[in-house]
Amino acid sequence: MSSLPNGIVTLMTDFGTVDGYVAAMKGALLSVNPRAVLIDVTHHVPTQDITEAAFQLATVWYAFPPGTVHVVVVDPGVGSDRRAVVVAAGGHYFVAPDNGLLTLLAANEPPTQMVVLDRPEFFRSDVSSTFHGRDIFAPVAGHLSSGTVTLDRLGSTADAETLVRLPWAAVQDTPTRIHAPVVSVDRFGNCRTLITRRQLPNDLGSLFVRCGDVTIRGVHRTYTDAAIGKTLALFGSHGGLEIAVRGGNAAQSWEIRRGDDVVVHTVGDTNL
Amino acid sequence: MSSLPNGIVTLMTDFGTVDGYVAAMKGALLSVNPRAVLIDVTHHVPTQDITEAAFQLATVWYAFPPGTVHVVVVDPGVGSDRRAVVVAAGGHYFVAPDNGLLTLLAANEPPTQMVVLDRPEFFRSDVSSTFHGRDIFAPVAGHLSSGTVTLDRLGSTADAETLVRLPWAAVQDTPTRIHAPVVSVDRFGNCRTLITRRQLPNDLGSLFVRCGDVTIRGVHRTYTDAAIGKTLALFGSHGGLEIAVRGGNAAQSWEIRRGDDVVVHTVGDTNL
Amino acid sequence: MSSLPNGIVTLMTDFGTVDGYVAAMKGALLSVNPRAVLIDVTHHVPTQDITEAAFQLATVWYAFPPGTVHVVVVDPGVGSDRRAVVVAAGGHYFVAPDNGLLTLLAANEPPTQMVVLDRPEFFRSDVSSTFHGRDIFAPVAGHLSSGTVTLDRLGSTADAETLVRLPWAAVQDTPTRIHAPVVSVDRFGNCRTLITRRQLPNDLGSLFVRCGDVTIRGVHRTYTDAAIGKTLALFGSHGGLEIAVRGGNAAQSWEIRRGDDVVVHTVGDTNL
Repeated sequence: MSSLPNGIVTLMTDFGTVDGYVAAMKGALLSVNPRAVLIDVTHHVPTQDITEAAFQLATVWYAFPPGTVHVVVVDPGVGSDRRAVVVAAGGHYFVAPDNGLLTLLAANEPPTQMVVLDRPEFFRSDVSSTFHGRDIFAPVAGHLSSGTVTLDRLGSTADAETLVRLPWAAVQDTPTRIHAPVVSVDRFGNCRTLITRRQLPNDLGSLFVRCGDVTIRGVHRTYTDAAIGKTLALFGSHGGLEIAVRGGNAAQSWEIRRGDDVVVHTVGDTNL
Repeated sequence: MSSLPNGIVTLMTDFGTVDGYVAAMKGALLSVNPRAVLIDVTHHVPTQDITEAAFQLATVWYAFPPGTVHVVVVDPGVGSDRRAVVVAAGGHYFVAPDNGLLTLLAANEPPTQMVVLDRPEFFRSDVSSTFHGRDIFAPVAGHLSSGTVTLDRLGSTADAETLVRLPWAAVQDTPTRIHAPVVSVDRFGNCRTLITRRQLPNDLGSLFVRCGDVTIRGVHRTYTDAAIGKTLALFGSHGGLEIAVRGGNAAQSWEIRRGDDVVVHTVGDTNL
Repeated sequence: MSSLPNGIVTLMTDFGTVDGYVAAMKGALLSVNPRAVLIDVTHHVPTQDITEAAFQLATVWYAFPPGTVHVVVVDPGVGSDRRAVVVAAGGHYFVAPDNGLLTLLAANEPPTQMVVLDRPEFFRSDVSSTFHGRDIFAPVAGHLSSGTVTLDRLGSTADAETLVRLPWAAVQDTPTRIHAPVVSVDRFGNCRTLITRRQLPNDLGSLFVRCGDVTIRGVHRTYTDAAIGKTLALFGSHGGLEIAVRGGNAAQSWEIRRGDDVVVHTVGDTNL
């Protein structure tokens, strides 16, 4: 079951903050729902980088109260026939072009409902072919967040199984080894994977974590468990395993980039 | 007629977001009107670049509902005798130093009222000579947005004809040719002009758009009408003609900069 | 006496705005107090730079109305045994790790109350060891700003004298000379000190201000009192003496950096 909209709307785009595009979206949204509480997630998704946006969304949405509407606009296909959708999942609402942005969210939280946005009465009166963030997604989020239009009235119901999904590199398991790519490098140079605590054995101290030129013994609880300048592995704020340098920048020190493979070995792995 | 203030206030400055200057403005505004809804347009206007700010304002204000108060502070003359004004236009309110920031807005939407801010009872109690954003513009916007002080009481009425206007390079028309400068390059490298759809003939397919080394046949409807990597001309989100590269960066590819001339020829133009 | 919380919460971190960390904090805060009004001070504090954050806080908090809650998270010791505190001072509330962030604030406004955050019932249900911004500071600010939990109930009362303080380089006085370091360089290249108007003699025109290779005669009232391109000294928006170049960048022109010494001489100083 979805929760009733709570009036909070988060926004994530690749529009940057130098131009007024995000403000135009907010104006369009407030024109529909002047009481909406607008929260920026980030507008610095690399241009058209759907993968990064999908990751960012998955790390943030659950911190908000149920009934929050999350708008994500990274939309290289704007003006084409790609669908625009609203998905309900985990008690929240997600408004986005159907291009893979909801892949990771939907993998973690199976959608309970989905509609395709095909009802122009909920759009801006003059829809451009280049800026659906302002002209479609923002007004729809305005209607939804205001509680005046229920999800099933916003568009035509569709099967959530038809949602476009990215071929996300899955975490792979062998008896003695797990590996997964770095999905995102944050501002501190922390290299983040989707490997979860549950996928690792109880005894974290006996593991080796390897990425490129660095091999780390054990998984730490917190940054301050390592000496300053030391490289460590720990479960980061996003919930997955990450490689960090205390007081430093792991990505720079070890030349790690998104897509690089992180391997976790148990001690007994003969291929270490 | 202006609309009654709706409690929404937008903010545009060249203060950046690294320092606390914008927050200080917001604090001063909320001290007057704690219920104001504050929306950032951008704070990354290049330092003291009045032309860019005037363009950004013109692309954004109309997305907000009538009765919105727009505060624009790009103010190289702070502390001098340049006037501070509030202008009503298009059902919105604009609070700014009188240095040309409202040029494009006023060209599109003739002001219906203007006051000069000369009543210290609506300012912060201690007005500095360096930071009128916090000490004058923000408190005035607070009073105006709260609905407790009407525009005519905020300052002395003045003739909107006296508003300082930039010598904006006008679009020029000849029977077979229109040209106008690139007024802004956005984050995606789209090169934006003020040439409107109405200024071009019906048959967009027969036109040539030229800027520096690139010549484009026809005007497209949307980015996805061109192949990836292709250069195209289309009407951008700001409402004017722009040059773009699908999935790329036109400004970088063609070394186009603000001020460069964009020429639109009809096919019959013998000087093509 | 502290004022009652007014529902406004400001946020300052070193998290940047590329990742979703700040949004996660806001989500956690709104989960506790959905009516909070959230204002970003800056999230571009250089990574783990407590000194810069302490300065930024001191220049901004007083622009907000009494009863505002200010959350500051620059927290290199997250996960260690450093304390988390709320301090009441100047009619405002300050929520932060106890690592020196409140040094300058506390020097200007003696704290009237302090509690140590040791009551998990006011934290997020699942406290990570890496992200206390989301899991402790934001929920606590939510409870405090909502007015439902008073300060003395949020944690154990502690003596504000025990607050960690940075060894802030004090302004030094001799009969004819005052000096103090540049504590911050802003986006415009203005080089800011904590030297106040009261510390200088009445006759500002007879002073010399020196920093590295530049010597300036007199202290100006405003930027426009100097010709374009000229270097001047004036009292900046933060309330202290700063060195600026009108229409330029003093830090770049004179290669001034944070920590460089600014010396103010009276004319009679024989060591000029």
